[in-house]
Amino acid sequence: MRVTRGALRGLGLWTRATTGARRVALITDSRVARLYADVALAALRRARIAASLIVVPVGESAKQPPRLVRLWRQLAELGIERRDAIVALGGGVVGDLAGFAAATWLRGVPWVNVPTTVVGQVDSSIGGKTGIDLAAGKNLVGAFHHPAGVLVDPQTLATLPERDYRAGMAEVAKTGFATDRALFERFERDTTRLRAREAGALERVLVETLAAKGRIVRADEREREGGPRAALNFGHTLGHALEAALGYRGLRHGEAVAIGMRFAARLSAAEAGLPAGEADRLDRVLDAWQLPRRIPGLPVSRIVRHLGLDKKRRGGVRWVLTPRVGRASVPRLISDRRIRAALLHFGARRG
Amino acid sequence: MRVTRGALRGLGLWTRATTGARRVALITDSRVARLYADVALAALRRARIAASLIVVPVGESAKQPPRLVRLWRQLAELGIERRDAIVALGGGVVGDLAGFAAATWLRGVPWVNVPTTVVGQVDSSIGGKTGIDLAAGKNLVGAFHHPAGVLVDPQTLATLPERDYRAGMAEVAKTGFATDRALFERFERDTTRLRAREAGALERVLVETLAAKGRIVRADEREREGGPRAALNFGHTLGHALEAALGYRGLRHGEAVAIGMRFAARLSAAEAGLPAGEADRLDRVLDAWQLPRRIPGLPVSRIVRHLGLDKKRRGGVRWVLTPRVGRASVPRLISDRRIRAALLHFGARRG
Repeated sequence: MRVTRGALRGLGLWTRATTGARRVALITDSRVARLYADVALAALRRARIAASLIVVPVGESAKQPPRLVRLWRQLAELGIERRDAIVALGGGVVGDLAGFAAATWLRGVPWVNVPTTVVGQVDSSIGGKTGIDLAAGKNLVGAFHHPAGVLVDPQTLATLPERDYRAGMAEVAKTGFATDRALFERFERDTTRLRAREAGALERVLVETLAAKGRIVRADEREREGGPRAALNFGHTLGHALEAALGYRGLRHGEAVAIGMRFAARLSAAEAGLPAGEADRLDRVLDAWQLPRRIPGLPVSRIVRHLGLDKKRRGGVRWVLTPRVGRASVPRLISDRRIRAALLHFGARRG
Repeated sequence: MRVTRGALRGLGLWTRATTGARRVALITDSRVARLYADVALAALRRARIAASLIVVPVGESAKQPPRLVRLWRQLAELGIERRDAIVALGGGVVGDLAGFAAATWLRGVPWVNVPTTVVGQVDSSIGGKTGIDLAAGKNLVGAFHHPAGVLVDPQTLATLPERDYRAGMAEVAKTGFATDRALFERFERDTTRLRAREAGALERVLVETLAAKGRIVRADEREREGGPRAALNFGHTLGHALEAALGYRGLRHGEAVAIGMRFAARLSAAEAGLPAGEADRLDRVLDAWQLPRRIPGLPVSRIVRHLGLDKKRRGGVRWVLTPRVGRASVPRLISDRRIRAALLHFGARRG
């Protein structure tokens, strides 16, 4: 992994060094294509790599099966072979989709991930998780397929829409709050500089978040039952359910996770001994990023139904709690009754 | 792996022993469902495993993307979780499809393979290859995902249609001719008993073919460039191209491979020093199984085009040759010109 301002201009040599490929399919979405496709293609050309551009639509809809099938057909048309590679340039959606295409094309070809969003840079770029959504839930279909290389260019965040930038920071807060107290405190201290997208602060928080996440993932490559990687799902149980209940419209992933984190922190206070002041503190940090506080008025029953389909379910819903900041616990079963009551407190509608 | 007559009746305990699952999705095709679904479901029930039956259509069309997507949706409806398992009951198509679904559902759940055809039992049940087809070629999309257990019941071959039974034997001939001379000679000697589906001869040849294939695959799990596993592609370069050129209609996989093997043996005589008498001998063995001799009148250009899309291509088409019976060589580049000439000899049409 390389994290450097301006790294995108070195994409060609980085792809050659990590994959050995002389030919790649560069997969990106239409927004990122407009901003960075030229720079990326020029960088690949300078390293004498033949690149074909595949553009997918912006947004989570690109992670539905029809798009994947179309992508496979495009790889067939391009004649991408085992010694070639796939380069994913874009946010988490592009990385998940292109990574899964790489995992399954010819039973696996190498890929390089070039995330251009906060979520992509801190969340999707480590761990080898790739996949697509079904109507029944996010990431239900996928594979573990580590990229051969990850290139993080913090400068690409300069063009990120404000709402996406803010939502992405929920993942930084999560990594700190669930796994690394020092990171959480730096994030808290640097709020103003980060809100201004100050390059130095940004690069530092990215590096630290990636380091924290890397430690966890290395200890638990396959996300085994009860393994440390579960900590990274802090806030995601409810977050995923909200996204699904809303049909993946209305809330950004990071926004849904922000609500999920606030909820999980209150559960942690009630069930796992987290001092209430620490849950307040998380609220203040998320407030500073204008991240949502309450569940948008969905009926409890619908949320509960989507919690049931969460793929981490195992004989009931288990919740990642934080008895202390930076120290998530093993996921814990909490009764449906208590969850329903807590959801009502958080803005869900009765019924 | 267990290879025993009547093994299907032990499916439940075998599934429990190899996967620990208490719930499975049993995937099969409509022909096999009619014959064996009751036995399989009863065996699972006896081991207190809850099983849901998913039936797919008979034939290669089940390996197209729409069927895979539907299968994913069915797994979502059933709520199959990571600790559950998938059981594939049927031929190579069912194994490839269900195995790929297992590889990709929740980023991988365990599966048990219960092949009920000769091809499935000797070819698809070892090596962890799973996948689906695109219009552009067979198995272009897939994953390596070893089954937790393989249960081979030679008795299920008693109900196999004669043409499928014969076509499947091409894979036995291939494994012997390309990797194990003793196996090839036993297969040759036992022709009459095997044609009569005599249980003892059948069980023995299955065990030996699986042992030969297992040795190769263990030495080369990921089918690396120039690795020994390439030997198992003997006859498959042309075989796959013929199947694709015919739109996967008209020829069984084993029949296409039989033509491909005859072709590769003649190439081996011309290019790699195989005594012509050994190519004649292979012809006689395949003739005894009434396997086709000639390329059905396709134009050379169309075959060549489909050779180009063969996924093992690497800067031109490389052919697995057999300088000696039982000893395939590293795949070797042969000029298009010579291939075109040889195809004409084998029945392809000019143009």
